[in-house]
Formats: sequence, structure tokens, C-alpha cells
Amino acid sequence: MALKLNCDLGESFGAWTMGMDEAVMPHIDLANIACGFHAGDPVVMQNTLALAKQHGVTVGAHPGYRDLNGFGRRSIQHQPEEIIALMLYQISALEGMAKAQGIEVEYVKPHGALYNDMMSDHSTRRAVLQAMAEHHSPPILVMQATPEAEQHLAEAEALGIQLWFEAFSDRGYSDDGRLVPRTQPGALLDRQQMLAQAQQLTQEGAVTTSGGKRLELKVDTLCVHGDNPEGIEAIRELRRIVQG
Amino acid sequence: MALKLNCDLGESFGAWTMGMDEAVMPHIDLANIACGFHAGDPVVMQNTLALAKQHGVTVGAHPGYRDLNGFGRRSIQHQPEEIIALMLYQISALEGMAKAQGIEVEYVKPHGALYNDMMSDHSTRRAVLQAMAEHHSPPILVMQATPEAEQHLAEAEALGIQLWFEAFSDRGYSDDGRLVPRTQPGALLDRQQMLAQAQQLTQEGAVTTSGGKRLELKVDTLCVHGDNPEGIEAIRELRRIVQG
Amino acid sequence: MALKLNCDLGESFGAWTMGMDEAVMPHIDLANIACGFHAGDPVVMQNTLALAKQHGVTVGAHPGYRDLNGFGRRSIQHQPEEIIALMLYQISALEGMAKAQGIEVEYVKPHGALYNDMMSDHSTRRAVLQAMAEHHSPPILVMQATPEAEQHLAEAEALGIQLWFEAFSDRGYSDDGRLVPRTQPGALLDRQQMLAQAQQLTQEGAVTTSGGKRLELKVDTLCVHGDNPEGIEAIRELRRIVQG
Amino acid sequence: MALKLNCDLGESFGAWTMGMDEAVMPHIDLANIACGFHAGDPVVMQNTLALAKQHGVTVGAHPGYRDLNGFGRRSIQHQPEEIIALMLYQISALEGMAKAQGIEVEYVKPHGALYNDMMSDHSTRRAVLQAMAEHHSPPILVMQATPEAEQHLAEAEALGIQLWFEAFSDRGYSDDGRLVPRTQPGALLDRQQMLAQAQQLTQEGAVTTSGGKRLELKVDTLCVHGDNPEGIEAIRELRRIVQG
Repeated sequence: MALKLNCDLGESFGAWTMGMDEAVMPHIDLANIACGFHAGDPVVMQNTLALAKQHGVTVGAHPGYRDLNGFGRRSIQHQPEEIIALMLYQISALEGMAKAQGIEVEYVKPHGALYNDMMSDHSTRRAVLQAMAEHHSPPILVMQATPEAEQHLAEAEALGIQLWFEAFSDRGYSDDGRLVPRTQPGALLDRQQMLAQAQQLTQEGAVTTSGGKRLELKVDTLCVHGDNPEGIEAIRELRRIVQG
Repeated sequence: MALKLNCDLGESFGAWTMGMDEAVMPHIDLANIACGFHAGDPVVMQNTLALAKQHGVTVGAHPGYRDLNGFGRRSIQHQPEEIIALMLYQISALEGMAKAQGIEVEYVKPHGALYNDMMSDHSTRRAVLQAMAEHHSPPILVMQATPEAEQHLAEAEALGIQLWFEAFSDRGYSDDGRLVPRTQPGALLDRQQMLAQAQQLTQEGAVTTSGGKRLELKVDTLCVHGDNPEGIEAIRELRRIVQG
Repeated sequence: MALKLNCDLGESFGAWTMGMDEAVMPHIDLANIACGFHAGDPVVMQNTLALAKQHGVTVGAHPGYRDLNGFGRRSIQHQPEEIIALMLYQISALEGMAKAQGIEVEYVKPHGALYNDMMSDHSTRRAVLQAMAEHHSPPILVMQATPEAEQHLAEAEALGIQLWFEAFSDRGYSDDGRLVPRTQPGALLDRQQMLAQAQQLTQEGAVTTSGGKRLELKVDTLCVHGDNPEGIEAIRELRRIVQG
Repeated sequence: MALKLNCDLGESFGAWTMGMDEAVMPHIDLANIACGFHAGDPVVMQNTLALAKQHGVTVGAHPGYRDLNGFGRRSIQHQPEEIIALMLYQISALEGMAKAQGIEVEYVKPHGALYNDMMSDHSTRRAVLQAMAEHHSPPILVMQATPEAEQHLAEAEALGIQLWFEAFSDRGYSDDGRLVPRTQPGALLDRQQMLAQAQQLTQEGAVTTSGGKRLELKVDTLCVHGDNPEGIEAIRELRRIVQG
């Protein structure tokens, strides 16, 4: 199966525009739509859902911490029941709006700090999985592809949750399978490196780490960014690569 | 059919408590649950849904304008598409959380200024009805019982929406069928007057106006308030009355 | 005295950018800085104040209704004491931050719907003036230049408030001295018309209305917009005109 | 000098009431007033300032993280410049509103998670001190009295900031001078223990720890709570004790 391209969309808010959703939507497979807590508002959500429907793009919920000012990028201490409630709220809001347009929310990808906390903190991950399990008809959960994939699969399966693993085309990987921190050299790949990494993931299911190691990663989808014309052109090239 | 008692619940927010939900829930039929824009938050919504389920109380969405500081009581200029979007968002959020607990949202009662604008402004009412019609499986809409009930029914039926009409047990009615404004004498009924008005609504489907006129009102449900022990005792008496 | 150019700045919020503040700041006289209720956040305010200081631009507070999602453009019902409190809060927040950088807030220009309500609704205008009067050292208040200027001056003077009147360079005026509504032809001037209107205001203190009438307006400052490169080029031309 | 009693006040928000401010105010020395980010709104702040002025109570700013839903009790990752900006914003807002009533903000006590992070995390404490130092006329900063008081004094003096140290009358102290965590026995003192601890602090400048050790603490003020009638009665007794 070809790797799917997923992209964060619907991140405008009121009078503030973010992203080039109309230019990106035709070239991706999965639209991660913000649900109002870190970005997005009801009108933006309606419009983004309509755009995804128009282009036949699969829709996912992109819930985040309640932090508009920090764009959901700041880790916030939460009790598990708070994480469960904020995820169910946001997924449900998008889901009902999608149904009103005749489409379904097929997956969930947590946003920003919630995503990072899910990957690094077991208690947060358990709360995220619990939220998914409480859903009346659980969508698929997107997690980062790491060497711990088998453990994450086991945790998810125990609650009846299906996972998709994602890799990042434009970020370097450390030998331990984590992303190179943005403060270090090699964190961000240039265009050639990015295309090469996508090629390797498509053909071998592996990346070459910053230490030169070959690291196999189980990957279902590539995360892409379309904030500017260069980004959109890169997405078009990535699509050609992943579709072989 | 006995008049049903409806009450606004789930109006706490974070560390702030409002209402005596646990004391009220056993004595009402319909719980209007705030959806996070004027009151309520995801955790409060989870808890309120669980409480309603425990007592077998029918659950309704209580969407409002996005105005926590004004508690949804201040009219805010909106475009119709904004009203449609904010209603679908809030109804959907509660609905998905209800489904996660195995229950359904069966009706929608707009809150505060959104409710008042719906009753007094045709453009707002049309947007509210449109929001309901866009829902994939429209719940019932609660409107105020007024002499314009037939017109409201016609507007709703044209979009396939079912209405419930509500009367206020503790508010005086003017000769024109509207509530006596709070700034005027006779706006708020005392306990005896309230029980008498409920009795008259139950037995005759009518109220006696501030001008002494007998006014017939088509009523399905009575709005009650349970903010304090006296209010809860009044609800218990009202229930005996409406159940004949 | 040359007309001063005033421009709304500091309207970014968290991860969302609005306006081209760095490009505009060198070419204006007065920076209306958003104070966090409709736009702006503490970090944006810090940066905007520093930019104004760097270019020697006079700083004004630009308070709005508490409505990030509506960008302060939606009228919201308020009690007078609410308007007084939200104005004092926002002005004070900016003022203290300005003092921390060694500069002063010299004037106040209400934003969006608060500005419109101030001009059209006497009760709102009285509350705005009252807020200014309660300030420990009232800055100047900016109002729209209209045929009612004398009345507005009298209202302000009664409370010890000084006014600056502003005209809009890029909006057409009706015969009654109001702006042509955006829904009507002639609402927005093209570049030539805009420069001509600025010229006429500078030299004659008058505009030519949509009905062809010559209308004298007492004007202290012109409102300009710098959202794109054309807007900034227009500001540079306007500055040459107003500086004779 | 007698220990001063400080209490968090002005923690209502819109329609939600918290605390018994009118009953507490006559019995305290220092009112820590919420500034709108975790609690309080402009109207609440106006009213709380007026109440403090009426009773001659010294006013302090009580800034918190921007988290109404979490009441500022959840730690949120921040960059130092974000902490500096949010503190200056909130202090300034209260300060200007106080000046409008003819009173001054004389001190600052960070709230909740911001307070805890200030005490436990050096980077946060440095940002808090930096915010104070950037203020045009720095108020006094309140920190918790701990065995590290000398180090905190040195850090503050280096930036020209004066400190007041506070102790908690109703919380047990560990041998290391920290509060016994709420999850452990001895975290909360009963009334007798509380009065005894206040007495010991007043007479000896020391507490008896949970391990039975005598711990000297440099203390300027006692933090008290007035959420219920028992709390208010306790405050009255504490006042008699600290005033000897």
C-alpha cells in the first residue's frame, strides 16, 4: 500500500489565516482538521470539511490542548480524565459537523504538545487510548513510528484501537529512532534530503539516521507541511514518490 | 401527556460551580446541558451526562453564544453561517460524548441571548432552524410558547424540524403572550403564583396574563430552576402538579 | 499642523500573524496597539511597543470587545460598567507595558464594533468617555470626524477628555457625513480617489461626498491600513501628501 | 512587625462566584487580586479593588498562567519572554485600574502553578524576577518562606527586587522546609494545629515539621483562605494571634 500523505489543515481562527488549505488539499490523502481548542473555529471547521469532501480527502480529527495563545504547542499538566474529556469533545464536534456534510471522521491525530506527550509519557498515552476506546465507534489513532511500535500496538490492541504510524519526511532521525531535536544540526532536512528520505521509506520502510545507521520503521503515512508555495510543490513531489 | 420539566444543567466551568445538579437531576425530565461556549467544559459535560444517565433523564444540547465572561446572556451580532456552525459544533460535541456513554441527545434548547434572539429576530431563527436541518439526524428544537406558535411550527416543518414549546412557571405573562420584562412589576412570580400558573397550564393549557386575560398557550414543557434548596423544593411540587 | 497617520498594529495573536507591522511602522505617526481582547497577546504587545519605540511612533491603546473569534467586529450588548471596566483593563495593561519600556500611551482609539457603537449609540459613547475620565491621567480619545463633532467635543469636555478626530482616506463619505456602507457602491475608494481625498482633507479640511457635496470635517488624523505591499506604498504617498 | 494575613480574592468570573470576598476583606491585610488570566474579569477586578479600598486593605497583583479552565493550577511550558510578558500585562492591568480608584498595587504574588514553578524551577523564577525588574516601579514580590530564603533574597536583590516571604498556616511542613504534599498524611492542618502553627510562627519565627523538627523560617505574611464561614472565623482568630 502506498504511504498516505497527511497534513494539518483548518488551522485558521476567526480573522487570522494560517496555511494554504485550498492549494494543499488536492495533493494529500489525509486532512488533520483542528477542532477549536488550539486552532480552528466552527466556521473554519465547516469550510475545511467542505474542502476535504470536494477533493475526496479522508478526514481526521486533530485535537489539541486548550491553548489558543500557545497554538497547542505548550505542554500542560492534565489529569487523565481531562485528556479523555477534551479528546472526546473535540473529536465529537468535528464528527457531527462531518456527518452533517455526509462524511465521516476516520482517524484521530493528536496535535502538538498533546502528540508529544502521548509519545513520551505513558500516562498521557494511556489517557489518549482510553479516550479513543470510550468513543462509540473508535476511529484509527495516528502515532509516531518509532522503535517502540510493537509496544504501542499492543497497548492499542488491548483497548480495541487500530493504529496508523507516521513518519516525518522533513525531519532527521537520531539513532534511537527519535527526531533530531530542533536545537541540533540535522533536525530539518533540505528538499533533496527530504525526497531521499521519502524514497527510502517508500521502498525500504527505513530511514538513515543522523549517525548513519539504517533504521527500519513501520510507517503508514507521511506528515507533510503546506504553509508556502515551496511546501506545496514539495508535497506534489512527495506524492509522486510515495505512489511509486 | 404530562408537561415535562426542563432545567439548565452542567453550567459549572473548571473550578467554578454553578447550580445544584445532583439535587435537581432526580426531579426533572429534561436536562439542558451547556456545551462549552457560555458554560460547561468537557469534564463538566462528561459528569453531567453521567448524572443524567444515572437518573434516566432525557438529555438535550444547550448551545449558546461564545461568551464565557457574559455567560451567553449578551446578544452578539452574528452572520447566519456563524450561528449554523456554532450550533452544529456544540450539539455535535455533546452528542458524541453522550453516545460514548450510551445515550442520545434528543433535543436542542438554545441558551440565553441566542434563545432570545431566536424568538425575536427572524434571521436568527432561520439560522437556528437551518443548523437543525443540517444535522444528520435532527433532534427536536425547544422554542418558547407564544401566540406565534403556529407560524413557528410552519417554519420548522418546512425544514423537517420538530418543535417542543416551553412555558416559564416562575415568570408573569403580558397580554401579548410575552414575558413581563424583568424591569417591570409582575415579572417574577412568587411560589404560590408559580404553582397556580403551573396548575392552570396543566389543566387548561392557558395562563392568566398580567392584564387579567386568559391566554391559551400550546405547551410541552415547563422551564424550572434549581439553584438553591427552595428552588429544588419548588421543582418537586411542580412535578406533582404536572403529573396530575 | 500636519494630519497624522494612524494605523492598527499589534493584531497578531500567538502563532497567527496579521499585518506587516515592521514595514508599516517607519511610515506612520500613531500606532493603535491591540490590547489582547480582540487581538494581540502580551508577547505581541511587548514586541509592538518595542517597534514603535524604535521608530519614535506615538503609541495609543486600541481596546475592543472581548471576542477573539470575531476579532472585535461583532457588536456585543454591554452594561456601561462592563465597558468602563474592559476599557480601563486594556488601556492599563498596555500602559504599564509601555512604561516598562520607557514610553507612554498617549491616546486611546476603540476598535471595531466598540468604535462603531461609540459613534452610533449614545449610551456606549457615554460609557467610553466615563472610562477615559476614570483614568488617573486620561489620554486623548480618538473619534470619527462627523458633522456631530461639536456635540462630541462638548460631551468630552464635560468630563475633561481631549479628542482627536479621524477621517478615513480610503472610504467614501455620504452627504450626511457618514461612511458609505460597504454594501453600497462608492464605499471603497481606489488609489487615485484615496490620494485625492487625502489632498482635499489636508488643504481644505473637507471631503467631496458620494452625492457631490463639499463637506467640511474637523480632522486631526487619517486612518491608514498596511496589510499588504500596496497598502504600505499607499501609506508612503499619503505621508508625503499630509506633510505638504 | 506583626505577620500580615494575605488572601486570594477577586476569583469570581462573570456569572460564577468564588470566595466570600465581602466577608473576608475586613479581616485581612493583603488582598491578592486575580488579574483575568486564571480568574477575575475587569468588572470583578473593579469591584474587588473598591472593596479593598473601602477596608483599607493593601492590594497586590495575583497573576497566573492563561488558563481559565484549569484555574491557573496546571503547569504550562513557557518561554521566559512569555512569562515576562504575561506578568507585566496582568500587573499593569490591575495597577491602572487601582490608580483609577486612587490606590496602588504594592506587591505581586504569582498564582497557582506559576507560583509553584517559580519556587521549584530556576528558569521560571528568573523570568518572574526579570518581569518584576522590567516594571517601571517594581512592587514587592511574594515568595514562599523556605530554607532557600537567603538564595532567593540574593537573586532578587541582584535585580533590585524586594521580597516578602509567606508561610501557610493550614499546611504541614516537611523536615526539608517544603509543604507536605496533599497526597500524604499531615498535609492539611486542623484548626487547632493551624492556630498553634500561627502562634509558633508569630512568637518564634519557626514551625514544627511533620518529622518533629523545629524549622526556622523568615516569614513576613501568612496565607489564609476564606471560602466558607469556618474559614472566615479562622481568619479572625489568626488575626488575633499574629497581632499578639
